[in-house]
Amino acid sequence: MRESCNFSSKNINQDKQGSADLNLTQAEFNEDKMSEECGVFGVFNADGESSAAELSYLGLIALQHRGQESAGICSNHNGDFNLHKGMGLVESVFEEKDMESLKGEMAIGHVRYSTSGSSKLSNAQPILINSIKGDLALAHNGNLANGAELRNNLEQNGSIFHSTLDTEVIAHLVARSFEDNIVEALVQSLHQLKGAFSLVAMTEDKLIAIRDPRGFRPLSLGKVDNTYVVASESCAFDVIGAEFIRDVAPGEVIVIDQDGIKSRRYTGENGTSLCVFEYIYFARPDSNIAGQNVLLARKEMGKQLAREMDVEADIVVPVPDSGIAAALGFAEESGIPYAQGILRNRYMGRTFIQPTQEIRDLKVRLKLSPIKEIIKDKKVILIDDSIVRGTTSKQIIGRIKEAGAREVHMAISSPPVEHPCYFGLDTSRRQELIASRNTEEEIGESIGADSLHYLSQAGMLKSIKTDVELGFCTACFDGDYPVDSRYLSEEE
Amino acid sequence: MRESCNFSSKNINQDKQGSADLNLTQAEFNEDKMSEECGVFGVFNADGESSAAELSYLGLIALQHRGQESAGICSNHNGDFNLHKGMGLVESVFEEKDMESLKGEMAIGHVRYSTSGSSKLSNAQPILINSIKGDLALAHNGNLANGAELRNNLEQNGSIFHSTLDTEVIAHLVARSFEDNIVEALVQSLHQLKGAFSLVAMTEDKLIAIRDPRGFRPLSLGKVDNTYVVASESCAFDVIGAEFIRDVAPGEVIVIDQDGIKSRRYTGENGTSLCVFEYIYFARPDSNIAGQNVLLARKEMGKQLAREMDVEADIVVPVPDSGIAAALGFAEESGIPYAQGILRNRYMGRTFIQPTQEIRDLKVRLKLSPIKEIIKDKKVILIDDSIVRGTTSKQIIGRIKEAGAREVHMAISSPPVEHPCYFGLDTSRRQELIASRNTEEEIGESIGADSLHYLSQAGMLKSIKTDVELGFCTACFDGDYPVDSRYLSEEE
Amino acid sequence: MRESCNFSSKNINQDKQGSADLNLTQAEFNEDKMSEECGVFGVFNADGESSAAELSYLGLIALQHRGQESAGICSNHNGDFNLHKGMGLVESVFEEKDMESLKGEMAIGHVRYSTSGSSKLSNAQPILINSIKGDLALAHNGNLANGAELRNNLEQNGSIFHSTLDTEVIAHLVARSFEDNIVEALVQSLHQLKGAFSLVAMTEDKLIAIRDPRGFRPLSLGKVDNTYVVASESCAFDVIGAEFIRDVAPGEVIVIDQDGIKSRRYTGENGTSLCVFEYIYFARPDSNIAGQNVLLARKEMGKQLAREMDVEADIVVPVPDSGIAAALGFAEESGIPYAQGILRNRYMGRTFIQPTQEIRDLKVRLKLSPIKEIIKDKKVILIDDSIVRGTTSKQIIGRIKEAGAREVHMAISSPPVEHPCYFGLDTSRRQELIASRNTEEEIGESIGADSLHYLSQAGMLKSIKTDVELGFCTACFDGDYPVDSRYLSEEE
Amino acid sequence: MRESCNFSSKNINQDKQGSADLNLTQAEFNEDKMSEECGVFGVFNADGESSAAELSYLGLIALQHRGQESAGICSNHNGDFNLHKGMGLVESVFEEKDMESLKGEMAIGHVRYSTSGSSKLSNAQPILINSIKGDLALAHNGNLANGAELRNNLEQNGSIFHSTLDTEVIAHLVARSFEDNIVEALVQSLHQLKGAFSLVAMTEDKLIAIRDPRGFRPLSLGKVDNTYVVASESCAFDVIGAEFIRDVAPGEVIVIDQDGIKSRRYTGENGTSLCVFEYIYFARPDSNIAGQNVLLARKEMGKQLAREMDVEADIVVPVPDSGIAAALGFAEESGIPYAQGILRNRYMGRTFIQPTQEIRDLKVRLKLSPIKEIIKDKKVILIDDSIVRGTTSKQIIGRIKEAGAREVHMAISSPPVEHPCYFGLDTSRRQELIASRNTEEEIGESIGADSLHYLSQAGMLKSIKTDVELGFCTACFDGDYPVDSRYLSEEE
Repeated sequence: MRESCNFSSKNINQDKQGSADLNLTQAEFNEDKMSEECGVFGVFNADGESSAAELSYLGLIALQHRGQESAGICSNHNGDFNLHKGMGLVESVFEEKDMESLKGEMAIGHVRYSTSGSSKLSNAQPILINSIKGDLALAHNGNLANGAELRNNLEQNGSIFHSTLDTEVIAHLVARSFEDNIVEALVQSLHQLKGAFSLVAMTEDKLIAIRDPRGFRPLSLGKVDNTYVVASESCAFDVIGAEFIRDVAPGEVIVIDQDGIKSRRYTGENGTSLCVFEYIYFARPDSNIAGQNVLLARKEMGKQLAREMDVEADIVVPVPDSGIAAALGFAEESGIPYAQGILRNRYMGRTFIQPTQEIRDLKVRLKLSPIKEIIKDKKVILIDDSIVRGTTSKQIIGRIKEAGAREVHMAISSPPVEHPCYFGLDTSRRQELIASRNTEEEIGESIGADSLHYLSQAGMLKSIKTDVELGFCTACFDGDYPVDSRYLSEEE
Repeated sequence: MRESCNFSSKNINQDKQGSADLNLTQAEFNEDKMSEECGVFGVFNADGESSAAELSYLGLIALQHRGQESAGICSNHNGDFNLHKGMGLVESVFEEKDMESLKGEMAIGHVRYSTSGSSKLSNAQPILINSIKGDLALAHNGNLANGAELRNNLEQNGSIFHSTLDTEVIAHLVARSFEDNIVEALVQSLHQLKGAFSLVAMTEDKLIAIRDPRGFRPLSLGKVDNTYVVASESCAFDVIGAEFIRDVAPGEVIVIDQDGIKSRRYTGENGTSLCVFEYIYFARPDSNIAGQNVLLARKEMGKQLAREMDVEADIVVPVPDSGIAAALGFAEESGIPYAQGILRNRYMGRTFIQPTQEIRDLKVRLKLSPIKEIIKDKKVILIDDSIVRGTTSKQIIGRIKEAGAREVHMAISSPPVEHPCYFGLDTSRRQELIASRNTEEEIGESIGADSLHYLSQAGMLKSIKTDVELGFCTACFDGDYPVDSRYLSEEE
Repeated sequence: MRESCNFSSKNINQDKQGSADLNLTQAEFNEDKMSEECGVFGVFNADGESSAAELSYLGLIALQHRGQESAGICSNHNGDFNLHKGMGLVESVFEEKDMESLKGEMAIGHVRYSTSGSSKLSNAQPILINSIKGDLALAHNGNLANGAELRNNLEQNGSIFHSTLDTEVIAHLVARSFEDNIVEALVQSLHQLKGAFSLVAMTEDKLIAIRDPRGFRPLSLGKVDNTYVVASESCAFDVIGAEFIRDVAPGEVIVIDQDGIKSRRYTGENGTSLCVFEYIYFARPDSNIAGQNVLLARKEMGKQLAREMDVEADIVVPVPDSGIAAALGFAEESGIPYAQGILRNRYMGRTFIQPTQEIRDLKVRLKLSPIKEIIKDKKVILIDDSIVRGTTSKQIIGRIKEAGAREVHMAISSPPVEHPCYFGLDTSRRQELIASRNTEEEIGESIGADSLHYLSQAGMLKSIKTDVELGFCTACFDGDYPVDSRYLSEEE
Repeated sequence: MRESCNFSSKNINQDKQGSADLNLTQAEFNEDKMSEECGVFGVFNADGESSAAELSYLGLIALQHRGQESAGICSNHNGDFNLHKGMGLVESVFEEKDMESLKGEMAIGHVRYSTSGSSKLSNAQPILINSIKGDLALAHNGNLANGAELRNNLEQNGSIFHSTLDTEVIAHLVARSFEDNIVEALVQSLHQLKGAFSLVAMTEDKLIAIRDPRGFRPLSLGKVDNTYVVASESCAFDVIGAEFIRDVAPGEVIVIDQDGIKSRRYTGENGTSLCVFEYIYFARPDSNIAGQNVLLARKEMGKQLAREMDVEADIVVPVPDSGIAAALGFAEESGIPYAQGILRNRYMGRTFIQPTQEIRDLKVRLKLSPIKEIIKDKKVILIDDSIVRGTTSKQIIGRIKEAGAREVHMAISSPPVEHPCYFGLDTSRRQELIASRNTEEEIGESIGADSLHYLSQAGMLKSIKTDVELGFCTACFDGDYPVDSRYLSEEE
């Protein structure tokens, strides 16, 4: 059992930036958004011919949009575990020599997104524990509603924690279980967990995939030749040439070993709460969740938005990249021409050095460039997928007006985000939800739009066509939380 | 006079990759393209209030698409020069402490794109020489047709070279000049240069901008408050809030010092040869060159392509990002719906580790994902801006067909590239130009397209509307080189 | 509570070397020796005016001879703990920015020596735990005889370990204690420990120093102005201008807080077992232990050796640096001239690259150079402090003979090491003790000496004059272990 | 031809230290000394069986005492040159991968010591030039008296310099020579050089060793099997098992190629000026120069000092390590007992972090520890090899008195250093020579000694017994410079 870690230089720069303006410095997809997401990946390679860590590495690159703060892979060769993790992007965390050390026919991997407060290597995943029941590696996407309570109980009884991860809470429950069999100890511990968890675990000879009873976060099963793979999103299968088999079901435990796949339901709980934001923003456009392609859902939301809105305009302009799919749908439905009125600079990372001299709206200026020749003298419908704090929207609209737009009508392809999320949200930002304390008109005014339009909740839900009937978690829009309200505290 | 340098860790990984498949691992905009480009930037800050290096840093980020191999800035504070350069992207080359050392009211900067053969720190720019005539810093975009000849002469006479840069050739000509005044020595040396050069130079108290007599490469002048800026493209002005003043004219020498701007023409040569590929691919869409916005030129090429073509299809799909503008134009003109049938993974850098196990078309697979739900059973018109080697096109078409496309018709928004470029091309790749040794039909067949279409040269030129009448260099399409043929050798 | 870590580049090279010949590549003082040692340091700064971490940094440099594998400091500012540790020497582990982050008026530090098997960052100290009873930082020198047994019990009850450190065993005992007060919980846990431990601990407002009942390892208390310091050896006081107050007594618990110093004995156990090897080899020559200066003890052992030996020779030559003090004593007593016949290369670190081509005895050759002009045709008495495996001795004697010595008589200023040590030894090396399976004659022959002489055990003990009467642990010489034999297993 | 470079992390820390008190932070042997030294090494391996770079690496480790600022090796495999150099010690500059890239049967290497002003990578050696006459690598120990004049001439004629190295001056002279043959061009250029140079050069197929006509710096020739080696000092031969053949003679050019060794004298100049400080301080004790072992010369100087002095004392204590040899000689001659009264901390490097809080004489305190038990109440004769600025001497004497010495009589085993050195000295320190502006009594008073004694110049010269009659350069003692006085300017 060997652990290694490294800090990429990216990380060091990142530290210097501080947290004050984190929203604007998050990497591409997650910018100015509200959730703490992660991506998990697992491989069980029945014929032992290929390297499980290499497949994980590729899978994590495909899942990179779910977390850019840290990355890790734990491999397993005949029960010999090797773990490497570090701060930064997958490509910078893993060097050739790291991959060489990650031998074995099984592996699990993780990419993590987080707020800066808890941004440190000890919070990188997977975590690896060496218990008397055997070695166990765990990687987890989600947020336990009762994580703090469980941690407190465990500490009262003498458990020592080395991270602030919910994943470590699960590890201690397993270590404390009276079950000697590590798989049974893991399943037993699930009964104590409340909230969102899509979990991939690895023992000496088994790969285990678990999804919480309400199925908050996606988790899928795939296969290539004799190799089983598990991933947060189906887009990770494509890259390694694997076929999508099916979603892991809410409340399901899948155990894969040399004897094949075994599945069971560990809970009698019913009723699902798939996070609707996966369709709006989190998931990658080429992923399918519950049978619905994400890009097409977004385009459909744009069409629906056009149907619900009544604005005359010359052009439909997306905020790149988050508004592109909806803008194309909007343009198609409304007949108003689509125009690339804003260019995104692909080379703007998160680590650039803030100059000492003041340049107004510098970050937005570096990243987004309105094209005057397209914008000038036009009535613009500006499309984005959501507004969280409103800061970026305000700066973009400002720059479009500077470029000569006659009117800017902001259209959002989801409803107003009024409530905090307890299943993946950084709750410290609750007060920052502009829609939680302002009317639509106030928001429109504060961001400088000539008018502001949101997609209705019914319209949004109608745009998503899953292959089975599903309940969604829409709590951030309507405050209707699918867990016991006593866990819904922001005090943690 | 202080020099420092650093290798970012990016660079180290990059080295490991070798050069065999460089085309496919180039960063975003330059991928699978044929030219060796660079970006230059210069600042003269008349009131001394802001940091010239900081403005250069921001300007270079905006010019990053012109070169991702190395970056450098040389600052000047009352004649005290400081130079920092390194391998990698601007953001990773410059750390806080580097910026702090780059004090001063003047600065020039450079980003470099190159082939792997000459990829080393000694080839990073700006270069800084300490001659008896005074200190001189030089940054250069272009390619001297007679660089090898000049270098040979200089070495015969005892000059020692430390790089393979044309810029160093210019430096030695200046050092050897009988002119004592360093500005005059520089102007004098220009008469010996044949080929493309957009040059920014800095002496103890002057910033100098020079464009070769034929104006192969763009170079623009801007201003913010009392600060003059010079940049390869106008997009770099916007980011620092500067206004575009005018293009530097072919054959013009601009000298900026405390007394203001002085301009002169140093040559009687007439007739311009602006590189048409700047509009097709090199320049950033939000830049204007000779009064023509680049994005709109590309969209117009797409429209013109639609007019010239006669194919029935269900959807128009761009290769992201290079084909998007033309595809939107094509769709608009043809009435065939535009569709985001291919997704680009923004997190795929150039340094990922190639797995030992073989995965077919892995790089394209990691970077470009066809969306089955959109592609399936469709007749697709696939749009890109150019084909150089054809390798990537073949892989993309393969993946689109895998995703279920009924037909794939490839449409290119420029003519076939049949001839090597001597003003920015890596000549070692001449034999790799698929169009130089194959008919259109053969190319179409080899890349697996059901049909292949190129924009006509006349159609291309018609799509570009400059504000003054200009001659273009179209040598890569028609072999009509605007310099003496004795320099057109590939032997170098 | 913040943790950071770093691997110095030293460490990376070191890893490459593998463990096969670790004995010969250990740093200066510890070379070819038999023990796993550590150094601890603690500061309580009553007036809050100076930085406790800086004093620790200087103290650890003075204690560096006790461990070169890893170093760490945990600081405490009003209960806010910061920990930084890394692989390598103190100077390379701590950079300016690390020191800046280690704010506070209290700190503890640690340097660690270890065998390569467990050489990893997770085994660096201090360790910092965040228990329900409060934060606790621990740094430990010694070896628990019942560490494995305690760990096993704790794991059976659900504790999860992250290192192979005895220190972590103590931490879990504290966390599991029914005592709520963390100091009492720590004292309570001491009763379960068997073996050697000199322990420095830090709570939110207290610095604690503990020495095991038999006092195997040294631990001293000092003071500078209003600042109390605790250190493994008195040499660490001098460097910060502190005065030695007294040794911490065996079985003593010292608690320092704003109210001053409190002392208690936590055990009724009697009889001490101070490790005699501290005088022979471990401790720094300028340290005093139990009132006896270490250098003078070594010189006296050399004198005594001269009294016990009967060899005629031309010169007395020490193996530098370990044999110098004894050789000077030997020469003084015997009247045979002392000569610097072997030079030590101070620039030979542990990380040099082994050439692919074979060079005989390369490491010894790089580090030790006989001076032919001194050695040639001489009868040499070669002095060293001990022989463990015999490999280095053999190589040195070989090189001295090569240099022309007529005879080489090896004289060792301690008795033969025949038995493993369980209180600091790497037991995996037991079979490597050349004296455990060979007679003196056989050893002499195998190392190529013309004769071999050891100091008698009585002679050794007579050379050490402590200020109070003390029992010594001489188990490695005579097998007389001062703990219950059931712990003396090599199976661990 | 490939160049690479790296900054070790050591270097980065070092830079932070600034130059203010450089004398005290130099590494072991060179501390508080006055000269800018270097070490050179060369290998010509006739049978091609071993790696020339590996032998160079080992040789440079043996020569490390001559320079710790930077290190470099240039290898040559059938005319293909590879160069790697970096800041820091040999061990940290060369990693495994660097060594792997340095293929070939020939190599030259260099270690450099320098003052901080010019401490940068561009001044590391060897330097490698690619001239029209062929590739040439150069490594140089010494100082050209007319370096500035030559450089000025060359710049006037258009040469561009990239370093402040005399070695680059030689390179430009070679490049400008009308001789086409590169060896002849090199020999021709020697006639223009005034001052000290021991030079190792490498062309495509030849290794060349050159010593200036007056033989200021040592240079020796050795052999192992069919491999010829050249080194600054003979100690470098021993480590690779090579035999010393002979010194390179003053004014000799040795050319080694497949046809064997050829020697010639290139100058008619007569009279040698071997630097006497090589025996006093620079060279390694196990080296022989002109047949005289360095350690024995130092011991003899100590004996001679005892003969010349008349002081009663209890013990003779050396400043470690520089005074040890002389102190042993002094004790032997005078009959006053030798005592290790000061211990040197081997772990004190040059990069430690200066604490913000003030600790008096911290650096000396960390590095040198008086042992009270030995010093107390004694009349001490303190021996060192030289005094340059006096700062360290003052601090050491202060600490010895603090430790209780009754009297401290400082005895120096060389005459007072009153004059600057132009063949290796950092002339900027001229004003720092305490003996250039103070009488012996004033010096003694200022360093706090009860008396101060220097060895006479005649006594010093008598102590050195070379195998041929030699003239020495004693200019630093008597101002008698062996070159034309017009070069003896400090203005450079």
